[in-house]
Amino acid sequence: MNHKPPYYAVIFTSKQTTDTVGYNEASALMESLAKEQKGYLGLDHARSEIGITISYWETLEDIARWKAQKDHLNAQANGIKKWYEQYTVQICKVERVYSFDNNE
Amino acid sequence: MNHKPPYYAVIFTSKQTTDTVGYNEASALMESLAKEQKGYLGLDHARSEIGITISYWETLEDIARWKAQKDHLNAQANGIKKWYEQYTVQICKVERVYSFDNNE
Repeated sequence: MNHKPPYYAVIFTSKQTTDTVGYNEASALMESLAKEQKGYLGLDHARSEIGITISYWETLEDIARWKAQKDHLNAQANGIKKWYEQYTVQICKVERVYSFDNNE
Repeated sequence: MNHKPPYYAVIFTSKQTTDTVGYNEASALMESLAKEQKGYLGLDHARSEIGITISYWETLEDIARWKAQKDHLNAQANGIKKWYEQYTVQICKVERVYSFDNNE
């Protein structure tokens, strides 16, 4: 993320169930769809014991619109029915950013 | 994180170098020290292609105090010298939280 604050972050932390059928396909589709949405700024993802996906957006309205997007609603329903044991969504305003790059 | 918003999150995303000597020990020490700090609320961590560590705090002052803590400053210096190819720190105000638990 090299966007100038303020902008918004959706922190999605999750524990998966053992049922991963269709998960990777849905995850890849959601990532490519998110990129097409108005106000999308970027995505960070890592998974080890838990999964963390952070998506970045220009405004809270952009986040609300993406949450209500048809294919995303379908994925959210499957997530609750099948893929997730537990998840938490935290909506944040990013106020300050700094970074370090060894190559600069 | 089951704290009621507003509270603050520090999103630390990183790419490691190949020099991991001392990293795990320092990482474990920082986690145990962070837990002792005033205003500490919790931590989420995952690592695959990148590492994501999110620490949660009551106030911005708590974050500033932890950033300036002696052992933490030492770890930050080693991080820049040895362990990190690149990192980004994003300071965020968490405004809204919701969660799902399959066991509830």
